[in-house]
Amino acid sequence: MTNGKLIQLFVDDEPFDVRYGELRSHERLLDFRAGVLSRRAEWASPAGRLVRVSSVRLVSFTQRAVAAIRYEVEPADGQARIAVESKLLTNEQLPPAGDDPRAAAALKNPLGQEYHDASGTTVMLVHTTRSSGLRVGAAMDHRIDCPGPVRAESRAFGDGGLVTVATVLQPGQKLRVIKFVAYGWSAERPPTGVRDQVWAALSAARQSGWDGLLTEQRKYLDEFWDRADVQVDGDAEVQQAVRFALFHVLQAGSRAQNRAIPAKGLTGPGYNGHSFWDTETFVLPMLTYTTPDAAASALRWRHSTLPLSLDRATQLGLHGAAFPWRTITGHECSGYWPAGTAAFHVNADIAIAAERYADATGDEEFAQSTGMDLLVHTARLWCSVGHHDAEGAFHIDGVTGPDEYSAMADDNIYTNLMAQRNLLAAADAVKQYPGRARELGVSDQECAAWRDAAQAMTIPFDETLGVHAQAAGFTRHEVWDFARTRPGQYPLMLHFPYFDLYRKQVVKQADLVLAMHLRGSAFTDEQKARNFDYYERLTVRDSSLSACTQAVIAAETGHLDLAFDYLGEAALIDLRALQHNTRDGVHIASLAGTWVALVSGFGGLRDEDRTFRFAPRLLRGLTRLAFTLLIRGRRLRIEITHAHATYALADGDPLEIMHHGHRVSLSAGKPRTYAIPASPSRAQPSQPPGRVPVHRRPAGTRTTKPWRRRDPNVGR
Amino acid sequence: MTNGKLIQLFVDDEPFDVRYGELRSHERLLDFRAGVLSRRAEWASPAGRLVRVSSVRLVSFTQRAVAAIRYEVEPADGQARIAVESKLLTNEQLPPAGDDPRAAAALKNPLGQEYHDASGTTVMLVHTTRSSGLRVGAAMDHRIDCPGPVRAESRAFGDGGLVTVATVLQPGQKLRVIKFVAYGWSAERPPTGVRDQVWAALSAARQSGWDGLLTEQRKYLDEFWDRADVQVDGDAEVQQAVRFALFHVLQAGSRAQNRAIPAKGLTGPGYNGHSFWDTETFVLPMLTYTTPDAAASALRWRHSTLPLSLDRATQLGLHGAAFPWRTITGHECSGYWPAGTAAFHVNADIAIAAERYADATGDEEFAQSTGMDLLVHTARLWCSVGHHDAEGAFHIDGVTGPDEYSAMADDNIYTNLMAQRNLLAAADAVKQYPGRARELGVSDQECAAWRDAAQAMTIPFDETLGVHAQAAGFTRHEVWDFARTRPGQYPLMLHFPYFDLYRKQVVKQADLVLAMHLRGSAFTDEQKARNFDYYERLTVRDSSLSACTQAVIAAETGHLDLAFDYLGEAALIDLRALQHNTRDGVHIASLAGTWVALVSGFGGLRDEDRTFRFAPRLLRGLTRLAFTLLIRGRRLRIEITHAHATYALADGDPLEIMHHGHRVSLSAGKPRTYAIPASPSRAQPSQPPGRVPVHRRPAGTRTTKPWRRRDPNVGR
Repeated sequence: MTNGKLIQLFVDDEPFDVRYGELRSHERLLDFRAGVLSRRAEWASPAGRLVRVSSVRLVSFTQRAVAAIRYEVEPADGQARIAVESKLLTNEQLPPAGDDPRAAAALKNPLGQEYHDASGTTVMLVHTTRSSGLRVGAAMDHRIDCPGPVRAESRAFGDGGLVTVATVLQPGQKLRVIKFVAYGWSAERPPTGVRDQVWAALSAARQSGWDGLLTEQRKYLDEFWDRADVQVDGDAEVQQAVRFALFHVLQAGSRAQNRAIPAKGLTGPGYNGHSFWDTETFVLPMLTYTTPDAAASALRWRHSTLPLSLDRATQLGLHGAAFPWRTITGHECSGYWPAGTAAFHVNADIAIAAERYADATGDEEFAQSTGMDLLVHTARLWCSVGHHDAEGAFHIDGVTGPDEYSAMADDNIYTNLMAQRNLLAAADAVKQYPGRARELGVSDQECAAWRDAAQAMTIPFDETLGVHAQAAGFTRHEVWDFARTRPGQYPLMLHFPYFDLYRKQVVKQADLVLAMHLRGSAFTDEQKARNFDYYERLTVRDSSLSACTQAVIAAETGHLDLAFDYLGEAALIDLRALQHNTRDGVHIASLAGTWVALVSGFGGLRDEDRTFRFAPRLLRGLTRLAFTLLIRGRRLRIEITHAHATYALADGDPLEIMHHGHRVSLSAGKPRTYAIPASPSRAQPSQPPGRVPVHRRPAGTRTTKPWRRRDPNVGR
Repeated sequence: MTNGKLIQLFVDDEPFDVRYGELRSHERLLDFRAGVLSRRAEWASPAGRLVRVSSVRLVSFTQRAVAAIRYEVEPADGQARIAVESKLLTNEQLPPAGDDPRAAAALKNPLGQEYHDASGTTVMLVHTTRSSGLRVGAAMDHRIDCPGPVRAESRAFGDGGLVTVATVLQPGQKLRVIKFVAYGWSAERPPTGVRDQVWAALSAARQSGWDGLLTEQRKYLDEFWDRADVQVDGDAEVQQAVRFALFHVLQAGSRAQNRAIPAKGLTGPGYNGHSFWDTETFVLPMLTYTTPDAAASALRWRHSTLPLSLDRATQLGLHGAAFPWRTITGHECSGYWPAGTAAFHVNADIAIAAERYADATGDEEFAQSTGMDLLVHTARLWCSVGHHDAEGAFHIDGVTGPDEYSAMADDNIYTNLMAQRNLLAAADAVKQYPGRARELGVSDQECAAWRDAAQAMTIPFDETLGVHAQAAGFTRHEVWDFARTRPGQYPLMLHFPYFDLYRKQVVKQADLVLAMHLRGSAFTDEQKARNFDYYERLTVRDSSLSACTQAVIAAETGHLDLAFDYLGEAALIDLRALQHNTRDGVHIASLAGTWVALVSGFGGLRDEDRTFRFAPRLLRGLTRLAFTLLIRGRRLRIEITHAHATYALADGDPLEIMHHGHRVSLSAGKPRTYAIPASPSRAQPSQPPGRVPVHRRPAGTRTTKPWRRRDPNVGR
C-alpha cells in the first residue's frame, strides 16, 4: 500500500537523520488505552542546532479508512529554518529479505499509477495492483499551526506526493502539523469512484478533527478494555505483555470486516499476508469471548469462500468443502503440499470455531446460516477423506497434522479428534435446524454416516508405552537425536532436510497436546499427564503456535511453573523478538495465545459440549488473575486467587458453569466464591536439551516498561 | 548435440518433402544383424519427376565417435537436376513438448559457437554447452560417386554447415553420397584439442571406408547375437520384439564406457537424459548375463560418483553413500522429494546389481574394488536410515518404494528386503576381503551391526488378510475406487492429485511383486501366490517398469497365459507406442525387461545367494524358448520345451545350477535334459477394471513385420 506515515524534517537544510548529528534523547510509547503511538526526541543537527521533535500517531478504530499524525517541532537553542515534508509514497523499496522461507517476498513495484493530483495541502493518488488489478486510493490533508509566517506547497507525482511546510522558528516557538490520511480500495469501482470514496473518508476525518479522532479512539478502547482486560497481579512485565497482545489482536481482528485475519495481522510482509488455521484456532477464541462481532466477521469471511472450497474439494476428488491451507481470497496459495493441502485439519478448525462462536454467543441467526453451512460442508469432507476399514473403524489417512515435522501420516490424533467433533457438531446442527438441513440436502442417511464415522473414529494409542500416538506408528519411530543437535540448529527446518524430520519422533509444535486442550474430554486425567510428559520430551517449539498450548496443558496437569514459563514465551514473542523475525510482522496467533494461556491455562476454561468449565489454579508468586468473558450476551467476571475463585455475572439470565467439576448456577449481581482444590503433584516433565523454556519468576509489581528503550530507527 | 543425420534432396529445385508431390512407396527397415537403418522411397515431385531414393545409416558400435550414411538417388522417368545437401545442424528447434512432466523440456539453443570451418567436402564445428560448459565437436566428410559431372561445395556457419553436391542425372544413372560424421567432446580440452580429436575420428572412419564400417558393425553384432540371442518359437511378433529390445539395450549400454545409461538411452529428450534405478534393476541383469563388460562399465560409472554420494549422505545427516534418484553426473537432479530423495531403495538396487555382476561373472578384481566399495557404503547408509525399535526390530521409516503412488511410508517391503540383502552382501564381502575392509575402516562391530539390522529387518505382514503389506499400514488403507475411474483417467498421476493416490491402496508399478522376484527366498510359494493375487487387483501399470516384473511372478505362480500377456506389453511398448510417448524416447528398462520376462519368467532364473536357479515352464502355444547366459566366463545355453529343459555348458569348468529345486552339475560339452514338472493350478488373478493386459495368443510363425508400414515422417 501507499505509505502515508512518512514525515521528513529538515533543520537548516539538514535532514533529521539520527545516523548523523547527535540524538540526545528518544522515547517511543504505545498507549493501549489512547490507541496512539507517541514519539519524542531531542536531536542536535550536525551543524549543532538542537531541536525537539514529537509526534503522535493513530490508526483510527472508528473511522476505518483513516490514520492521523500530530507532528511538532521546536528549536531549543536558537533560531532554525524548519521544513516539514509530509509524504505519500508508493512502491517503497523494502530491506532485502533473508533466506527464511517464512519471511516471504515483498513484491517489487506492485502498484501501477492511475491518477494523481495535488492542491493546497492535499495530495490524492489512485493506483492499481499490477497482478490482481485491485484499485487503491490514498489521500492526505494537513492542518498547520505556526506562530510565524509559513509557506505550504504540494506536489503529486506518479509514485507519490508531497506537502512541504516551511517556516523559521525562534526557540520556544513550535510548528505543529496535523496530517490526515485516508485510504480506500475496490476491485470493481472505477478510478473516480475510488478517488471520491477516499476524498469522503478524508472529509470525515477533517470534520472530526484531531481531537475528535482522539476522543473516538479512546472511547472505542475504553469499551474494549472494559470488557476484555486481563489483570495479572504479581508480574508487571507479563501484565504489560498481555495488554500488548490484546491490543495487537484487536488491531488485527476488530475491523477486518468480513476479510481474513492474516498470520501477521497487517504488521509485516511475513507469510505474504496469508491467513492460516491460526485465525480459527488461536485468534477466534479470544475474539469470541471478548469481541464476538469480530469473530463472527472472520467466520463470515471463511463462509464467503465456500464456493471456492467446494470447487477445491471436487478438484481433489472429495465431497464437501476443502478450505485452503493458506490464502487471502479463498484460493489455495500453498504450493508445497505435504505441509499444505494435506493439512486437512484446517477444515475442522474452521468448523469448531464456528461451533464455539455459536455456543458462546447464542447467536441463533449465525448458527443456522453461516455456522450450519460450515459444519455441514466440512462434515461431508471428512466422510470422503476418511474411510471405514474392514472391521468398521474409521480412519483418516495421509494427512498432515499441526506438527509440521511429520507429514502425510495415517490417523493423526488431532485431525481425527477434531474431525470427530466436527462430524458430531454437524449432526447436532441438522437435528436443531431440520429445515436448513433439507435445504442443504442432508438426508437421514448422510447424517447417520457422520455419527457412525465419529463413533468409529480411530484414536491411536500405544499400549506398550501407555501413551497416545500422535499418528499411527509415530511412537515407534526413531527419536530425534536431540543430544547431538546444537543450539544454532534450531529452528530445525532451516538446518535439516524434511526427509530427516518427517520420519523421526520430533515435534515442531503442540499437536496431540493441542488435541488434549480442544478435545480434553477424549482423555482421562492420567492419560493427559502421561501424554504431556511423553510429548514434552519431543517438542522443540520451532513454531510460535506451541508455547501457549503447552502452557494450557502444563497448567491442567499441575505444572504451574512450567505453564508460566510458556506463558512468558508466548506473551513476549514480539516484545523480546524471541524468534528474531518480528521485523516480518508480529505473531498474532501467539499473542492471542497469551490470552488462551491465561484464560484456559490458569483459568482452566474448556468449552466443549456447550458447557463452560473452569478449573482455575494460580501460580505461586502471582497474587490475582481477573478476566471477563462475554457468554451468551452476558458478562461473566472471574477473579482468581490462590485459595478461591469468584464468578460474578454482571447481567442477564442465570448461567450455569462448572467449577473444578462441580456444577454452579450463577445469577446476575450475585458473585459466588469457591475454594480451589490443591494441584496434583507430579514430577516435572523435561524438554529436549536446549529447548527448556526460559524460567520465569513472577517479576513483582515493578513496572519494567520493556519498550522504553533507545530506538536506532527513529527518523526513518 | 549437433545433428549429423540430415541430408536434404532437391529434385529440379523442389525439396523432397512428402507433404507435397506423391509418395509412391516408402519402406524403413532396421536390420539388427547388420546394425543399419535402411530407407527406400519412390517419390514423384510436384512437377511430376519420379525419383528413387535410398539411404543406409549406421551408428558404429566399433568406432564409438562415428556415424555414416550411404545416400543414393536416381531419376526413374526422365532427366533430373539433383542436389543433395548434407548438413551439420546445431540448436535445432524441436517440436513443442506437451504437459506430461515425464517428457522433459528440451533446452532452447543449448550450444554456443566456438569454431567453424569448411573445406572441400568437409565441415568442422566446435561448440560449448551454455550451461555446463562442455565442449562438443562434430565433423563430416563425404565420398561422392556419380556417373556424370558433379559439383561439390561446402560452407560452414556458426550454427551449422553444409556440403552440397549437384549434378544432372539421366534415368538409370545414380548419385551416391557417403557421409561420414564424427563427434567428440570434453569438459577439459581446449577448442583445438576437441577439433583435432574429431578430425582423427573422421580420418579413421574414412580409412575404414563405408564397407569397412559395415563389416566391423556386422562382426560386432554377430558376436552379440551369438551370445545373447533369445529364441522364441511360436510367436514371430514377440520374437521380433525381443530382438528389437535386445538391440536397443545394446545400443544404450554397450558403449556407455563408464558413463550412465539413461532411462531413454540416447533416443529422445524424455526424463532429461537422466538415469534412475532402472539401469541397475532392469537393464544390468540382461547386460550382466550377455554383455558383462557393459554391466561393469555402468557400475564403474556409479562408483565414480561415490564422492558426491558420500557428500549427499552427509547433507542428509546420514552415513555412507546416498546415491541420487535421478542424475547424469552424480548430482541429485530430483527436485520433488517425496518421489525423489525419499526413494532410498536406489542404493540397494545399485549394491545388488554390483553383487549380481560379481557373482555371475566371478570378476574378483571388480568384487574387491568397485563392488566392495558400493556394498560397504550403501550398508552404512541403511544402518543410519533405519533404526531398531524398543523390541529390537529394525525399521526403515519415511521412504518411498518403487510404487510411486505411495510415498514416505514406513517399512516399505521392497526397500526393507533389498536393504537386508544389501547389508548381508556387505558383511559377506567384508569376510571375503578383510584387507579391503580394513582400508574402508569397517570394524567387527560395524559388520555385526549390519548383520543385526538384516536379521531384525521388519517385513510387514497383514495377518487378517494373510498377505504381506507393501508398507506398514498399506493393506488397511482405503482401496482406490477403480470402478469409478474412467479409461481416459490413466495414467492416474496426470488426472488425480498425489494426495489422493498416496493415501489409498493403488499401485503404480510392481513393488512388493518386484521384491518377490528379486528376494524370492523371503516368501513361501503360498505367500507368493496370495500376494500376487492381492496386488494384481491394485496394480494399474502406470509405469513401464511393471509389466515385465508381473510377467515374472505370474509365470512363477502358475499363470503362464497372464505372464505372456505382460511379456507382450513389455516387449511391444515402443514398437506399438503403447504409452503414447515413444516420441520422447524408447523405454530402455521395459525393453530390457522383455529379456527378464523371458529368462526369469518362462526360464525361471533366480540368482540370489550365489546360486543359479532355473524353474522353466513354457506357455502352451509357444514351442521352444532358447537363450544363452554368460556365467563365470562360461556359456550356458538353455533350451525349453513344454516337457523338457536342456542345459548345455559350452566351455570351461563344471557349473552347478538348480532345476526346479534339484541340484544339477553341468560339464562342458555334456548337455543335460530334465523333465519340467506340471504347473500349479490356481485361479487366475484379476486386475482393476480397464487395466487387464491385452490378451495375447502366440501368433505362430508368420512374420508380421510390424514396422513395415508407411511412415508419414519420411524426408524430414
